[in-house]
Amino acid sequence: MEDSLEILRHSTSHLLAQAVKRLFPETRLGIGPAIDTGFYYDFEPTTLWTSDDLLTIEKEMHKIMKENLPIQKSIWTREQAVQYFTEHNEPYKVELIQELPADEPITIFQQGEFLDLCRGPHLETTGQVRFFTLLSLAGAYWRGDEHNPMLQRIYGTAFFSKEDLEAYLIQMEEAKRRDHNKIGRELEYFTTTSYIGQGLPIMMPNGAKVIQILQRFVEDEEEKRGYLLTKTPFMAKSDLYKISGHWQHYREGMFIIGDETKDEEVLALRPMTCPFQFQVFLAKTRSYRDLPMRLNETSTLFRNEASGEMHGLIRIRQFTISEGHIACTEEQLADEFAGCVTLANDLLEVIGLREDVTYQFSRFDPKKMDKYIGSPEQWIQVEEKMKNILDAMPFTYKDAPGEAAFYGPKLDLQMKNVFGKEDTLITVQIDFQLASRFEMEYTDAEGKRQFPYILHRTSIGCYERTLALLLEKYAGALPPWLAPVQVCLIPITDQQKEYAKEIHGILKNAGIRTWLDDRAETMQNKIRQAARQKIPYMLVMGGREASSLEKMVSVRQRNGVDLKTMPIAVFLEKLLAQIQTRDKNLLG
Amino acid sequence: MEDSLEILRHSTSHLLAQAVKRLFPETRLGIGPAIDTGFYYDFEPTTLWTSDDLLTIEKEMHKIMKENLPIQKSIWTREQAVQYFTEHNEPYKVELIQELPADEPITIFQQGEFLDLCRGPHLETTGQVRFFTLLSLAGAYWRGDEHNPMLQRIYGTAFFSKEDLEAYLIQMEEAKRRDHNKIGRELEYFTTTSYIGQGLPIMMPNGAKVIQILQRFVEDEEEKRGYLLTKTPFMAKSDLYKISGHWQHYREGMFIIGDETKDEEVLALRPMTCPFQFQVFLAKTRSYRDLPMRLNETSTLFRNEASGEMHGLIRIRQFTISEGHIACTEEQLADEFAGCVTLANDLLEVIGLREDVTYQFSRFDPKKMDKYIGSPEQWIQVEEKMKNILDAMPFTYKDAPGEAAFYGPKLDLQMKNVFGKEDTLITVQIDFQLASRFEMEYTDAEGKRQFPYILHRTSIGCYERTLALLLEKYAGALPPWLAPVQVCLIPITDQQKEYAKEIHGILKNAGIRTWLDDRAETMQNKIRQAARQKIPYMLVMGGREASSLEKMVSVRQRNGVDLKTMPIAVFLEKLLAQIQTRDKNLLG
Repeated sequence: MEDSLEILRHSTSHLLAQAVKRLFPETRLGIGPAIDTGFYYDFEPTTLWTSDDLLTIEKEMHKIMKENLPIQKSIWTREQAVQYFTEHNEPYKVELIQELPADEPITIFQQGEFLDLCRGPHLETTGQVRFFTLLSLAGAYWRGDEHNPMLQRIYGTAFFSKEDLEAYLIQMEEAKRRDHNKIGRELEYFTTTSYIGQGLPIMMPNGAKVIQILQRFVEDEEEKRGYLLTKTPFMAKSDLYKISGHWQHYREGMFIIGDETKDEEVLALRPMTCPFQFQVFLAKTRSYRDLPMRLNETSTLFRNEASGEMHGLIRIRQFTISEGHIACTEEQLADEFAGCVTLANDLLEVIGLREDVTYQFSRFDPKKMDKYIGSPEQWIQVEEKMKNILDAMPFTYKDAPGEAAFYGPKLDLQMKNVFGKEDTLITVQIDFQLASRFEMEYTDAEGKRQFPYILHRTSIGCYERTLALLLEKYAGALPPWLAPVQVCLIPITDQQKEYAKEIHGILKNAGIRTWLDDRAETMQNKIRQAARQKIPYMLVMGGREASSLEKMVSVRQRNGVDLKTMPIAVFLEKLLAQIQTRDKNLLG
Repeated sequence: MEDSLEILRHSTSHLLAQAVKRLFPETRLGIGPAIDTGFYYDFEPTTLWTSDDLLTIEKEMHKIMKENLPIQKSIWTREQAVQYFTEHNEPYKVELIQELPADEPITIFQQGEFLDLCRGPHLETTGQVRFFTLLSLAGAYWRGDEHNPMLQRIYGTAFFSKEDLEAYLIQMEEAKRRDHNKIGRELEYFTTTSYIGQGLPIMMPNGAKVIQILQRFVEDEEEKRGYLLTKTPFMAKSDLYKISGHWQHYREGMFIIGDETKDEEVLALRPMTCPFQFQVFLAKTRSYRDLPMRLNETSTLFRNEASGEMHGLIRIRQFTISEGHIACTEEQLADEFAGCVTLANDLLEVIGLREDVTYQFSRFDPKKMDKYIGSPEQWIQVEEKMKNILDAMPFTYKDAPGEAAFYGPKLDLQMKNVFGKEDTLITVQIDFQLASRFEMEYTDAEGKRQFPYILHRTSIGCYERTLALLLEKYAGALPPWLAPVQVCLIPITDQQKEYAKEIHGILKNAGIRTWLDDRAETMQNKIRQAARQKIPYMLVMGGREASSLEKMVSVRQRNGVDLKTMPIAVFLEKLLAQIQTRDKNLLG
């Protein structure tokens, strides 16, 4: 697993810790691992640091680099280590040592006056760390648990060459430019308010419109593929979650209403749709003729994320998901699974994200059976079945042991956001257990009662997250069929206002989303603003257009391309065709 | 208020109580008022009654009628009354007496051995009560409060003539036939499950489909009328509700997550959309150019109804509503208000419910100012303004003092369900208070900061409730554009299966919702079942149709009308036109 870049970054985090201890000796140390984008180190400082402090710390790191201290590994006894870190007032290190398995050797890495509990490996000297920078400060609970003290985390990155570092920093600048959490607010897709709460974004009309378009597109496409729409409640009594196992396996992630010790009824908001949608299957006696039964729902889910985890529209506490479940026989399983993956890929292709996803086979961890329901034998059997299905598919996937749902293995379609953080966009899961828990039986062709397999799947994922990734992918400039405002109408002077209104009416009647900008601003300012708002097309109307017999408009694009003058009927026809085919590009 | 029918019914409830006391002397009496549909009396019996007991009680009532006892009024002192009812073990009557205002005379009505605390008036003798029947038994908390004991309520009705009583009973039979809570389940629109909970219906594919159609229809119509769609979170921190006043005025109706005495963050599910949607206004600096700002949302709300209040899809704990708010200037108020009412009426006209609504002006109650925010002077002023708007509208309305929202007066569009119970379907409210609470300012044309008026409105009401009323109105036979399945395809024998599939494909490609019934059943059985499922059209295909050059189908309607044979292209064209125009009728 550990490649050389990871070793470099891990060593840089030790440089960081050494610099901090030199400058702020009272600081207590947490942990400092390498991560995908660089490294971090968590500290309990005596005061809150600012970005000025980061500069000072970085300077000290450069000094340590120049000192070119050898980095030396030694093995200590547990007693030695506990004693040393207790004496040096490092309670977090002591806690870590005490939790190490009895047979694990305690390794210590030392460079100059600084030493740290660490598995390693590391570079040979501090001088080998050369191209690095500190990036940002954040709060982080010790071990990610909000019941623990809040530490200060310093993020940084390091590379083997100046070029790589610079390229990364440029990429980060680009990422910031595309960050949906920035442009999504600037372009009025969403907002947040402290008194509503964290992870509860408010979709402004632009965001709500795009989600409406996507939702209708997905629901219609699913209907074409034989899905039946459902609409099920967002909460249930704890009784339901006790049957599903969520009460035992997912309770800390749920919002609970009421207190079991004193209330007659305890309800919980749903973190998933499964047992709710199962009721549709259960409402009637079912036979093999009902299978495969494909159910879909534009569902709202609630997950009580820790505050440090929440991010823009990507990780939130309430979200809308294209959820669905398929009940099927064993013989139908492979086809139905393939159908789910094909649907997801087709939808991703249309919205333009398909090229960016990778595939992950999330399996169980035989060492942690308390995380799952069912026996290891059952898991091995169903994973074998799933592996055969996956191997027949036209993509490669990586194995992710321990990432399964508690009731079955999954295929996850993964995507990275602009900052390189990977999240699951879409998932298709095989569940061989919940049908029996909920007594979902069907009569097979021989008249015997059977439990179906259940596929849990999304087709386009969570709408909020998908919108976020679309905004980042297109840097806010969504394809015309998705753009919340498709055309901006710009009369050059007041004399063309009436004409602009007439053109506006023609477009609106054809269902085009328009904005008539009749403010007292110069044409150039209006064009600039429409382009900043990423409106695909601007129709500029001066005296010549207004007096034309063919109702001419002068068409400009947000990317600066000038399509020159054309009759409104011609423009409208081209635009409608583009919307109809969900074209990712502009006309010119 | 009290008309003669009400007096008759009230006297019948005394007959009921007298009969009960004769048969079950240990029974304690609650209250026994006349209601819209008849009367009831609440009792605390020593055993639970059955419908057999109702027959016995009714028989005894007939005896009392024949005894023709005079009904006599007398005025007692408070002490006398308390002593009498205490001695006779009637604690509920004692409670009522003790709560009567000191200056109110205590009136007692006596007939034979039976006497009751009662304001009256009553008929002169028990013999004047002639045409009555007991209808049903139900549980009811004393004074409607679930912390009080559960009493047994006996419902009955009475009329002045045999014909009226019979007509009413026939109407009730019809009501049962149309009851959405019965046919909505039979026709698989929805189901419920005890372990999910009361008032949390599960929409089956039929129900979800109709709501999807209505939702798209409403959202599109609102977009045409200048509304901007939003999508806001379903919960917020208590901080938000403290500003809006819901924490003080509506807390017992909300689902609350967390405990203020120990949790850092207390959240509540929203019982309304207002302060959430206001955030869209607040996200930017606003000027008069932004007004009127019309915002709409297909919103989910949560209300913690008492368990006795819940009913089918009409009164539930989670529902979906076509919610919206308009921020406008004082000058725009009348037009915007009229626009809201026109939109609601237009939508009701299309779905066929307009003829059934009545209008109610829900005003404040100056004697109960603790129920409202704002001063009586402000309320009088805004109600005067609203009255002027209402008087200019093309409908009559009745006054409903004390029925206002806590922040302003409302126009309620009322509708009765099949059992005669009236509910609010749609509401348009004028709010002159919340804008200032949330600091929603705009800059007027003179550059001054102003608070807008806010209209709170729905356009088609709650989708679940509207669906319930539609099912009752049409007795389940929804117009073709709304019907979840529009066409049932019936091949007469296996030989026509392939042909039926071809026709099926043609319809599906045109977006028609179809069901191909290729089971091994007789044609007659299939036709009967499709009609029972209220599928508008059945296409029967025999050997003649299957061998025709023009792809003929034999068209029957669910109402039994036979449209004979026609080419599928002709049928499809007619059906598409009917869907397009949202025709309430069938083709023939």
